Amino acid sequence: MSSYDQVMQKHPAPGNVVKEWVIPAKEYLAFTMRRGQVLRFVDIEGQQVPDLVCFNETDLSEQLNLGNSLLLNKRRELRKGDILYSVICNPMMTIVGYSNGESYSYGPMCSEELNRIRYGVPATRNCRDNFAKALAPWGFTYRQIPNAFVPFMRVVVEPDGTMEIKEPTSQAGDYYDLRAEMDLLVAVSNCPQERNPCNAFKPTPMGVIIYESSGG
Amino acid sequence: MSSYDQVMQKHPAPGNVVKEWVIPAKEYLAFTMRRGQVLRFVDIEGQQVPDLVCFNETDLSEQLNLGNSLLLNKRRELRKGDILYSVICNPMMTIVGYSNGESYSYGPMCSEELNRIRYGVPATRNCRDNFAKALAPWGFTYRQIPNAFVPFMRVVVEPDGTMEIKEPTSQAGDYYDLRAEMDLLVAVSNCPQERNPCNAFKPTPMGVIIYESSGG
Repeated sequence: MSSYDQVMQKHPAPGNVVKEWVIPAKEYLAFTMRRGQVLRFVDIEGQQVPDLVCFNETDLSEQLNLGNSLLLNKRRELRKGDILYSVICNPMMTIVGYSNGESYSYGPMCSEELNRIRYGVPATRNCRDNFAKALAPWGFTYRQIPNAFVPFMRVVVEPDGTMEIKEPTSQAGDYYDLRAEMDLLVAVSNCPQERNPCNAFKPTPMGVIIYESSGG
Repeated sequence: MSSYDQVMQKHPAPGNVVKEWVIPAKEYLAFTMRRGQVLRFVDIEGQQVPDLVCFNETDLSEQLNLGNSLLLNKRRELRKGDILYSVICNPMMTIVGYSNGESYSYGPMCSEELNRIRYGVPATRNCRDNFAKALAPWGFTYRQIPNAFVPFMRVVVEPDGTMEIKEPTSQAGDYYDLRAEMDLLVAVSNCPQERNPCNAFKPTPMGVIIYESSGG
């Protein structure tokens, strides 16, 4: 058993595992999952965030909408029991549990342009580009990626109103579970950001497990 | 001079007025404006919010992106001097002034579905539908409307984390100015919401002025 396997098992998934991947540092993944199945992120080495977008598999124009999600949950910081809604307000995913509940739901993701403006560096790996590559087989382009939900990401608003990205508090083996409320196309960017504290300045692998809950 | 004219002049625009409209209660408007021109909203009767989206007029795939705007301004509550950015992080509009600085920038807008879920009412007037009608001549559909920036809108997060829409504090004649940083297609929904405090339960007209600043 590899050390990754041990980390993936730190909190055993409460059900039958259907699929399992480890996304290498800075890389991406797209997959479909069935209604009722649970998507689990496992932070393999700690302090790594996965950016998530999703689409109704049977109608790809129905995409994740964080604005609707904030308004319907009536919270800015989503938590267990809260729901991610689509652009037409259908439930897409429910937050069913986690060992570290930090997340970021206002929607930005790193991009070529953001990194150029913020850090003066061109041609960086970035989440928007990862999503565009992951979703190209389904016909999506760079500008068509909806705003992402980001488990484990830590953003703090200082007393003066300044919003700062902080290092995640997630540790090796921490998980975040989202149940699909419809058949979904899901894309994940294992955030490649290395120029701010988003991933503690060191992108690392992310575990992804799809399981069917034995709790019915 | 009508009473609307008097209200529109309460704070005279500091420049040459190019165009001027009053959007009736619950209605919408789309127009183009040139780089350097200023869009002024005037709350005609008070406690009314305008939802705003915009696009690069010469490349309509470049649209407003509030996620990027929050991240680049490093604030959740935008204020004078802050910039609204596009999906590829170009400056689209700068907040250049206001007599009431409340705004909402997390992106939701009212929709047929939100009103059905929240208030149990079908077939309501709503912002997403207003935008879809306003932008149909440019080929946009209901699901393609980007998240909106909303001057005067007041949202408060309670100590328990609950996010609540509150009545605006804007009074008759209050204005909010946004300068175009590129040639723009702009759409405005004069929010028709009457079932929560967003518009103090009573949608009213919204003044729109385009002026060219005499300050150069």
